[in-house]
Amino acid sequence: MKAKQLMDNDFVYISKDDSVVEVSKAMEEVRRFTCPVVDDDKKLVGWITAFEITKGLREGAEKISDIMSAPDEVDTVNENDPARIAVIKTADNRFVTVPVVNDDNQVMGMIRSCDIVELLSSLYDIKVKSIYLAMQDQLKGVTWDELMEASANVSTRTTGKKITAKEYEANIETATFGEAIWATGGLEKFFAGLIAVGELVVARKVGRARR
Amino acid sequence: MKAKQLMDNDFVYISKDDSVVEVSKAMEEVRRFTCPVVDDDKKLVGWITAFEITKGLREGAEKISDIMSAPDEVDTVNENDPARIAVIKTADNRFVTVPVVNDDNQVMGMIRSCDIVELLSSLYDIKVKSIYLAMQDQLKGVTWDELMEASANVSTRTTGKKITAKEYEANIETATFGEAIWATGGLEKFFAGLIAVGELVVARKVGRARR
Repeated sequence: MKAKQLMDNDFVYISKDDSVVEVSKAMEEVRRFTCPVVDDDKKLVGWITAFEITKGLREGAEKISDIMSAPDEVDTVNENDPARIAVIKTADNRFVTVPVVNDDNQVMGMIRSCDIVELLSSLYDIKVKSIYLAMQDQLKGVTWDELMEASANVSTRTTGKKITAKEYEANIETATFGEAIWATGGLEKFFAGLIAVGELVVARKVGRARR
Repeated sequence: MKAKQLMDNDFVYISKDDSVVEVSKAMEEVRRFTCPVVDDDKKLVGWITAFEITKGLREGAEKISDIMSAPDEVDTVNENDPARIAVIKTADNRFVTVPVVNDDNQVMGMIRSCDIVELLSSLYDIKVKSIYLAMQDQLKGVTWDELMEASANVSTRTTGKKITAKEYEANIETATFGEAIWATGGLEKFFAGLIAVGELVVARKVGRARR
Protein backbone atom coordinates (compact mmCIF):
# COMPACT_ATOMS: atom_id res chain seq x y z
CA MET A 1 0.00 0.00 0.00
CA LYS A 2 1.24 3.44 -0.92
CA ALA A 3 0.85 6.70 0.98
CA LYS A 4 -1.51 8.03 -1.68
CA GLN A 5 -3.95 5.17 -1.05
CA LEU A 6 -4.16 6.05 2.62
CA MET A 7 -4.40 9.82 2.33
CA ASP A 8 -7.45 11.95 2.96
CA ASN A 9 -8.48 14.25 0.11
CA ASP A 10 -10.92 16.22 2.22
CA PHE A 11 -8.74 19.07 3.41
CA VAL A 12 -8.37 22.79 2.75
CA TYR A 13 -5.50 24.26 0.80
CA ILE A 14 -4.71 27.62 2.27
CA SER A 15 -2.63 30.46 0.90
CA LYS A 16 -0.25 32.60 2.91
CA ASP A 17 -2.28 35.68 1.96
CA ASP A 18 -5.51 34.25 3.38
CA SER A 19 -6.92 35.96 6.45
CA VAL A 20 -6.59 34.21 9.80
CA VAL A 21 -10.31 34.68 10.47
CA GLU A 22 -11.41 33.13 7.17
CA VAL A 23 -9.04 30.17 7.59
CA SER A 24 -10.34 29.56 11.12
CA LYS A 25 -13.88 29.33 9.73
CA ALA A 26 -12.79 26.96 6.94
CA MET A 27 -10.99 24.69 9.40
CA GLU A 28 -14.05 24.54 11.65
CA GLU A 29 -16.21 23.70 8.66
CA VAL A 30 -14.14 20.74 7.44
CA ARG A 31 -13.18 19.90 11.04
CA ARG A 32 -9.44 19.74 10.48
CA PHE A 33 -6.96 20.80 13.17
CA THR A 34 -4.09 21.16 10.67
CA CYS A 35 -3.75 22.64 7.18
CA PRO A 36 -1.04 22.87 4.54
CA VAL A 37 -0.18 26.35 3.26
CA VAL A 38 0.54 26.21 -0.48
CA ASP A 39 1.56 28.56 -3.29
CA ASP A 40 -0.37 29.00 -6.57
CA ASP A 41 1.29 25.84 -7.83
CA LYS A 42 0.07 23.85 -4.78
CA LYS A 43 3.62 23.55 -3.47
CA LEU A 44 4.01 23.36 0.30
CA VAL A 45 5.18 26.70 1.70
CA GLY A 46 4.02 26.46 5.31
CA TRP A 47 1.95 24.71 7.93
CA ILE A 48 -0.90 25.81 10.16
CA THR A 49 -2.36 24.12 13.22
CA ALA A 50 -5.28 25.24 15.36
CA PHE A 51 -2.68 26.45 17.90
CA GLU A 52 -1.34 29.11 15.52
CA ILE A 53 -4.94 30.06 14.72
CA THR A 54 -6.02 30.53 18.35
CA LYS A 55 -2.87 32.53 19.12
CA GLY A 56 -3.32 34.55 15.93
CA LEU A 57 -6.96 35.31 16.73
CA ARG A 58 -6.10 36.43 20.26
CA GLU A 59 -3.29 38.66 19.06
CA GLY A 60 -5.19 40.05 16.10
CA ALA A 61 -2.87 38.62 13.42
CA GLU A 62 -4.25 39.29 9.96
CA LYS A 63 -2.57 37.02 7.46
CA ILE A 64 -1.63 33.35 7.51
CA SER A 65 1.96 34.28 6.55
CA ASP A 66 2.26 36.08 9.93
CA ILE A 67 1.53 32.94 11.93
CA MET A 68 2.41 29.85 9.87
CA SER A 69 5.30 27.47 10.57
CA ALA A 70 8.07 27.30 7.99
CA PRO A 71 7.91 24.42 5.50
CA ASP A 72 11.16 22.94 6.81
CA GLU A 73 9.43 22.36 10.16
CA VAL A 74 6.92 20.06 8.46
CA ASP A 75 7.65 16.40 7.88
CA THR A 76 6.12 15.07 4.66
CA VAL A 77 5.83 11.74 2.89
CA ASN A 78 5.96 11.21 -0.84
CA GLU A 79 2.73 9.92 -2.41
CA ASN A 80 4.63 6.86 -3.66
CA ASP A 81 6.27 6.07 -0.32
CA PRO A 82 5.03 2.89 1.36
CA ALA A 83 2.10 3.76 3.64
CA ARG A 84 4.06 2.35 6.57
CA ILE A 85 6.53 5.28 6.31
CA ALA A 86 3.65 7.56 7.26
CA VAL A 87 2.65 5.18 10.02
CA ILE A 88 6.18 5.17 11.46
CA LYS A 89 6.48 8.97 11.28
CA THR A 90 3.11 9.39 12.99
CA ALA A 91 3.97 6.94 15.74
CA ASP A 92 7.47 8.30 16.35
CA ASN A 93 6.56 11.98 16.32
CA ARG A 94 2.97 11.81 17.58
CA PHE A 95 1.70 13.60 14.51
CA VAL A 96 -1.99 14.16 14.05
CA THR A 97 -1.51 14.69 10.30
CA VAL A 98 1.29 14.19 7.78
CA PRO A 99 1.04 15.97 4.42
CA VAL A 100 1.54 13.85 1.31
CA VAL A 101 3.47 15.47 -1.55
CA ASN A 102 4.38 14.42 -5.08
CA ASP A 103 7.86 14.59 -6.64
CA ASP A 104 7.34 18.32 -7.29
CA ASN A 105 6.55 19.00 -3.62
CA GLN A 106 2.90 19.68 -4.46
CA VAL A 107 0.52 18.73 -1.65
CA MET A 108 -1.72 15.87 -2.81
CA GLY A 109 -3.43 14.92 0.44
CA MET A 110 -3.06 14.46 4.16
CA ILE A 111 -2.61 11.30 6.18
CA ARG A 112 -4.43 11.53 9.50
CA SER A 113 -3.71 9.46 12.57
CA CYS A 114 -7.35 8.35 12.77
CA ASP A 115 -7.11 7.00 9.20
CA ILE A 116 -4.05 5.03 10.25
CA VAL A 117 -5.91 3.68 13.28
CA GLU A 118 -8.69 2.55 10.96
CA LEU A 119 -6.22 0.83 8.64
CA LEU A 120 -4.21 -0.86 11.38
CA SER A 121 -7.21 -1.93 13.39
CA SER A 122 -8.77 -3.58 10.34
CA LEU A 123 -5.91 -6.07 10.63
CA TYR A 124 -6.81 -6.75 14.23
CA ASP A 125 -10.42 -7.26 13.29
CA ILE A 126 -9.73 -10.25 11.07
CA LYS A 127 -11.54 -13.25 12.49
CA VAL A 128 -9.32 -16.01 13.87
CA LYS A 129 -11.57 -18.38 11.97
CA SER A 130 -10.37 -16.96 8.64
CA ILE A 131 -6.79 -17.74 9.66
CA TYR A 132 -7.88 -21.29 10.45
CA LEU A 133 -9.61 -21.54 7.09
CA ALA A 134 -6.37 -20.46 5.37
CA MET A 135 -4.56 -23.05 7.46
CA GLN A 136 -6.97 -25.82 6.48
CA ASP A 137 -6.68 -24.81 2.85
CA GLN A 138 -2.90 -25.06 3.12
CA LEU A 139 -2.91 -28.42 4.94
CA LYS A 140 -4.72 -30.32 2.23
CA GLY A 141 -6.42 -33.45 3.50
CA VAL A 142 -6.90 -32.25 7.07
CA THR A 143 -10.53 -31.93 8.12
CA TRP A 144 -11.99 -29.02 10.05
CA ASP A 145 -12.84 -31.36 12.93
CA GLU A 146 -9.25 -32.58 13.13
CA LEU A 147 -8.09 -28.97 13.22
CA MET A 148 -10.49 -28.10 16.05
CA GLU A 149 -9.55 -31.27 17.95
CA ALA A 150 -5.84 -30.43 17.69
CA SER A 151 -6.49 -26.81 18.71
CA ALA A 152 -8.44 -27.87 21.78
CA ASN A 153 -5.58 -30.21 22.71
CA VAL A 154 -2.93 -27.51 22.32
CA SER A 155 -5.06 -24.98 24.20
CA THR A 156 -5.66 -27.39 27.09
CA ARG A 157 -1.94 -28.19 27.24
CA THR A 158 -0.88 -24.50 27.12
CA THR A 159 -3.42 -22.98 29.48
CA GLY A 160 -4.03 -25.97 31.77
CA LYS A 161 -7.76 -25.32 31.27
CA LYS A 162 -9.66 -28.15 29.62
CA ILE A 163 -11.56 -27.12 26.49
CA THR A 164 -13.43 -29.30 23.98
CA ALA A 165 -13.16 -29.08 20.21
CA LYS A 166 -16.74 -27.76 20.06
CA GLU A 167 -16.00 -25.05 22.63
CA TYR A 168 -12.85 -24.09 20.75
CA GLU A 169 -14.80 -23.80 17.53
CA ALA A 170 -17.38 -21.57 19.20
CA ASN A 171 -14.59 -19.33 20.53
CA ILE A 172 -12.89 -18.70 17.19
CA GLU A 173 -16.23 -18.08 15.51
CA THR A 174 -16.31 -14.61 17.07
CA ALA A 175 -12.73 -14.00 18.26
CA THR A 176 -10.57 -11.60 16.28
CA PHE A 177 -6.84 -11.68 15.62
CA GLY A 178 -6.46 -8.71 17.99
CA GLU A 179 -8.23 -10.50 20.83
CA ALA A 180 -6.19 -13.65 20.18
CA ILE A 181 -2.93 -11.73 20.42
CA TRP A 182 -4.01 -10.07 23.63
CA ALA A 183 -5.23 -13.39 25.04
CA THR A 184 -2.12 -15.40 24.17
CA GLY A 185 0.34 -12.73 25.26
CA GLY A 186 1.77 -11.56 21.97
CA LEU A 187 2.15 -12.23 18.30
CA GLU A 188 4.97 -14.75 18.65
CA LYS A 189 2.98 -16.79 21.16
CA PHE A 190 -0.12 -16.70 19.01
CA PHE A 191 1.88 -18.00 16.05
CA ALA A 192 3.65 -20.60 18.15
CA GLY A 193 0.23 -21.91 19.23
CA LEU A 194 -0.98 -22.14 15.64
CA ILE A 195 2.23 -23.87 14.59
CA ALA A 196 1.75 -26.37 17.44
CA VAL A 197 -1.73 -27.11 16.06
CA GLY A 198 -0.28 -27.48 12.56
CA GLU A 199 2.42 -29.77 13.89
CA LEU A 200 -0.13 -32.02 15.56
CA VAL A 201 -2.38 -32.43 12.54
CA VAL A 202 0.56 -32.82 10.13
CA ALA A 203 2.14 -35.51 12.33
CA ARG A 204 -1.19 -37.36 12.30
CA LYS A 205 -1.57 -36.91 8.57
CA VAL A 206 1.95 -38.22 7.87
CA GLY A 207 1.33 -41.09 10.31
CA ARG A 208 -1.91 -41.99 8.52
CA ALA A 209 -0.23 -41.94 5.13
CA ARG A 210 2.47 -44.33 6.31
CA ARG A 211 0.14 -46.81 7.92
CA MET B 1 -4.33 -4.29 27.90
CA LYS B 2 -6.77 -1.93 29.53
CA ALA B 3 -7.76 1.57 28.46
CA LYS B 4 -5.99 3.05 31.48
CA GLN B 5 -2.67 1.59 30.31
CA LEU B 6 -2.98 3.32 26.96
CA MET B 7 -4.22 6.71 28.13
CA ASP B 8 -2.26 9.93 28.15
CA ASN B 9 -2.08 11.72 31.50
CA ASP B 10 -0.70 14.92 30.04
CA PHE B 11 -3.88 16.90 29.46
CA VAL B 12 -5.63 19.91 30.94
CA TYR B 13 -8.74 19.66 33.05
CA ILE B 14 -10.83 22.69 32.36
CA SER B 15 -13.80 24.10 34.23
CA LYS B 16 -16.91 25.57 32.68
CA ASP B 17 -16.19 28.88 34.39
CA ASP B 18 -12.71 29.18 32.83
CA SER B 19 -12.23 31.96 30.32
CA VAL B 20 -12.01 31.04 26.64
CA VAL B 21 -8.81 33.09 26.29
CA GLU B 22 -7.04 31.35 29.18
CA VAL B 23 -8.09 27.89 27.97
CA SER B 24 -6.84 28.68 24.47
CA LYS B 25 -3.42 29.51 25.93
CA ALA B 26 -3.37 26.34 28.04
CA MET B 27 -4.26 24.17 25.05
CA GLU B 28 -1.49 25.75 22.97
CA GLU B 29 0.97 25.16 25.79
CA VAL B 30 0.28 21.42 26.18
CA ARG B 31 -0.44 21.14 22.43
CA ARG B 32 -3.79 19.42 22.75
CA PHE B 33 -6.63 20.00 20.27
CA THR B 34 -9.29 18.64 22.64
CA CYS B 35 -10.02 19.01 26.37
CA PRO B 36 -12.48 17.55 28.85
CA VAL B 37 -14.56 20.02 30.87
CA VAL B 38 -14.99 18.76 34.44
CA ASP B 39 -16.70 19.81 37.66
CA ASP B 40 -14.95 20.18 41.04
CA ASP B 41 -15.16 16.42 41.45
CA LYS B 42 -13.42 15.82 38.09
CA LYS B 43 -16.63 14.49 36.59
CA LEU B 44 -17.11 15.03 32.86
CA VAL B 45 -19.56 17.89 32.20
CA GLY B 46 -18.55 18.96 28.70
CA TRP B 47 -16.10 18.81 25.85
CA ILE B 48 -14.01 21.42 24.07
CA THR B 49 -12.16 21.19 20.77
CA ALA B 50 -10.01 23.81 19.08
CA PHE B 51 -13.00 24.47 16.78
CA GLU B 52 -15.14 25.78 19.65
CA ILE B 53 -12.17 27.83 20.81
CA THR B 54 -11.53 29.51 17.44
CA LYS B 55 -15.22 30.24 17.00
CA GLY B 56 -15.45 31.50 20.60
CA LEU B 57 -12.43 33.78 20.17
CA ARG B 58 -13.83 35.24 16.95
CA GLU B 59 -17.21 35.87 18.50
CA GLY B 60 -15.86 37.18 21.81
CA ALA B 61 -17.32 34.38 23.96
CA GLU B 62 -16.15 34.70 27.54
CA LYS B 63 -16.72 31.46 29.36
CA ILE B 64 -16.16 27.82 28.43
CA SER B 65 -19.77 27.04 29.40
CA ASP B 66 -20.88 29.31 26.52
CA ILE B 67 -19.10 27.25 23.87
CA MET B 68 -18.62 23.69 25.12
CA SER B 69 -20.38 20.59 23.76
CA ALA B 70 -22.74 18.75 26.09
CA PRO B 71 -21.35 15.66 27.86
CA ASP B 72 -23.84 13.40 26.07
CA GLU B 73 -22.18 14.33 22.78
CA VAL B 74 -18.90 12.86 24.01
CA ASP B 75 -18.12 9.17 23.68
CA THR B 76 -16.03 7.83 26.56
CA VAL B 77 -14.40 4.58 27.54
CA ASN B 78 -14.13 3.18 31.04
CA GLU B 79 -10.58 2.92 32.40
CA ASN B 80 -11.08 -0.85 32.83
CA ASP B 81 -12.44 -1.41 29.31
CA PRO B 82 -10.16 -3.37 27.00
CA ALA B 83 -7.91 -0.93 25.13
CA ARG B 84 -9.29 -2.25 21.88
CA ILE B 85 -12.69 -0.67 22.67
CA ALA B 86 -10.97 2.71 22.44
CA VAL B 87 -9.26 1.60 19.24
CA ILE B 88 -12.56 0.56 17.67
CA LYS B 89 -14.31 3.80 18.72
CA THR B 90 -11.45 5.88 17.33
CA ALA B 91 -11.41 4.00 14.03
CA ASP B 92 -15.18 4.01 13.60
CA ASN B 93 -15.77 7.64 14.52
CA ARG B 94 -12.47 9.16 13.41
CA PHE B 95 -11.86 10.52 16.87
CA VAL B 96 -8.65 12.36 17.62
CA THR B 97 -9.13 11.77 21.36
CA VAL B 98 -11.40 9.66 23.57
CA PRO B 99 -11.71 10.56 27.27
CA VAL B 100 -11.19 7.75 29.76
CA VAL B 101 -13.46 7.77 32.83
CA ASN B 102 -13.73 5.68 35.97
CA ASP B 103 -16.93 4.13 37.35
CA ASP B 104 -17.87 7.49 38.88
CA ASN B 105 -17.56 9.26 35.50
CA GLN B 106 -14.43 11.07 36.67
CA VAL B 107 -12.01 11.81 33.83
CA MET B 108 -8.80 9.86 34.40
CA GLY B 109 -6.99 10.44 31.12
CA MET B 110 -7.32 10.74 27.37
CA ILE B 111 -6.60 8.22 24.66
CA ARG B 112 -5.18 9.90 21.57
CA SER B 113 -5.18 8.48 18.07
CA CYS B 114 -1.41 8.95 17.79
CA ASP B 115 -0.94 6.82 20.94
CA ILE B 116 -3.04 4.13 19.31
CA VAL B 117 -0.95 4.35 16.15
CA GLU B 118 2.15 3.87 18.27
CA LEU B 119 0.65 0.83 20.00
CA LEU B 120 -0.67 -0.81 16.85
CA SER B 121 2.42 -0.13 14.79
CA SER B 122 4.63 -1.72 17.44
CA LEU B 123 2.91 -4.96 16.45
CA TYR B 124 3.82 -4.40 12.82
CA ASP B 125 7.40 -3.67 13.79
CA ILE B 126 8.03 -7.12 15.22
CA LYS B 127 10.79 -8.77 13.21
CA VAL B 128 9.73 -11.77 11.14
CA LYS B 129 12.82 -13.47 12.54
CA SER B 130 11.32 -13.46 16.04
CA ILE B 131 8.26 -15.28 14.70
CA TYR B 132 10.59 -17.85 13.14
CA LEU B 133 12.46 -18.21 16.43
CA ALA B 134 9.16 -18.89 18.21
CA MET B 135 8.34 -21.39 15.49
CA GLN B 136 11.69 -23.17 15.88
CA ASP B 137 11.23 -23.26 19.63
CA GLN B 138 7.84 -24.84 19.12
CA LEU B 139 9.04 -27.40 16.55
CA LYS B 140 11.55 -29.06 18.84
CA GLY B 141 14.31 -30.89 16.96
CA VAL B 142 14.11 -28.80 13.80
CA THR B 143 17.29 -26.87 13.05
CA TRP B 144 17.41 -23.25 11.93
CA ASP B 145 18.97 -24.32 8.63
CA GLU B 146 16.14 -26.77 7.96
CA LEU B 147 13.65 -24.00 8.64
CA MET B 148 15.40 -21.61 6.23
CA GLU B 149 15.69 -24.34 3.60
CA ALA B 150 11.96 -25.11 3.85
CA SER B 151 11.09 -21.40 3.76
CA ALA B 152 13.16 -20.83 0.62
CA ASN B 153 11.40 -23.82 -0.99
CA VAL B 154 7.95 -22.55 -0.11
CA SER B 155 8.80 -19.02 -1.22
CA THR B 156 10.18 -20.24 -4.56
CA ARG B 157 7.07 -22.35 -5.08
CA THR B 158 4.66 -19.53 -4.15
CA THR B 159 6.28 -16.60 -5.95
CA GLY B 160 7.91 -18.47 -8.84
CA LYS B 161 11.11 -16.56 -8.04
CA LYS B 162 14.04 -18.73 -6.99
CA ILE B 163 15.53 -17.83 -3.60
CA THR B 164 18.21 -19.65 -1.60
CA ALA B 165 18.05 -20.45 2.11
CA LYS B 166 20.85 -17.92 2.74
CA GLU B 167 18.99 -15.19 0.85
CA TYR B 168 15.80 -16.00 2.74
CA GLU B 169 17.63 -15.76 6.03
CA ALA B 170 19.07 -12.38 5.07
CA ASN B 171 15.57 -11.14 4.17
CA ILE B 172 13.91 -12.03 7.46
CA GLU B 173 16.83 -10.59 9.41
CA THR B 174 15.49 -7.09 8.70
CA ALA B 175 11.90 -7.63 7.51
CA THR B 176 9.07 -6.80 9.87
CA PHE B 177 5.71 -8.48 10.32
CA GLY B 178 4.09 -5.43 8.69
CA GLU B 179 6.28 -5.68 5.61
CA ALA B 180 5.67 -9.41 5.41
CA ILE B 181 1.90 -8.94 5.48
CA TRP B 182 2.08 -6.28 2.79
CA ALA B 183 4.44 -8.43 0.72
CA THR B 184 2.41 -11.64 0.95
CA GLY B 185 -0.94 -9.96 0.43
CA GLY B 186 -2.55 -10.29 3.83
CA LEU B 187 -2.45 -11.92 7.21
CA GLU B 188 -4.09 -15.16 6.06
CA LYS B 189 -1.60 -15.57 3.22
CA PHE B 190 1.36 -14.78 5.45
CA PHE B 191 0.13 -17.36 7.89
CA ALA B 192 -0.60 -19.96 5.21
CA GLY B 193 3.04 -19.55 4.11
CA LEU B 194 4.29 -20.18 7.63
CA ILE B 195 2.10 -23.26 7.94
CA ALA B 196 3.43 -24.53 4.61
CA VAL B 197 6.97 -24.18 6.00
CA GLY B 198 5.95 -25.92 9.22
CA GLU B 199 4.29 -28.68 7.24
CA LEU B 200 7.45 -29.28 5.22
CA VAL B 201 9.80 -29.48 8.21
CA VAL B 202 7.38 -31.55 10.30
CA ALA B 203 6.90 -34.02 7.46
CA ARG B 204 10.69 -34.37 7.22
CA LYS B 205 11.03 -34.72 11.00
CA VAL B 206 8.35 -37.42 11.18
CA GLY B 207 9.96 -39.12 8.17
CA ARG B 208 13.37 -39.08 9.89
CA ALA B 209 11.95 -40.50 13.12
CA ARG B 210 10.37 -43.40 11.27
CA ARG B 211 13.44 -44.27 9.27
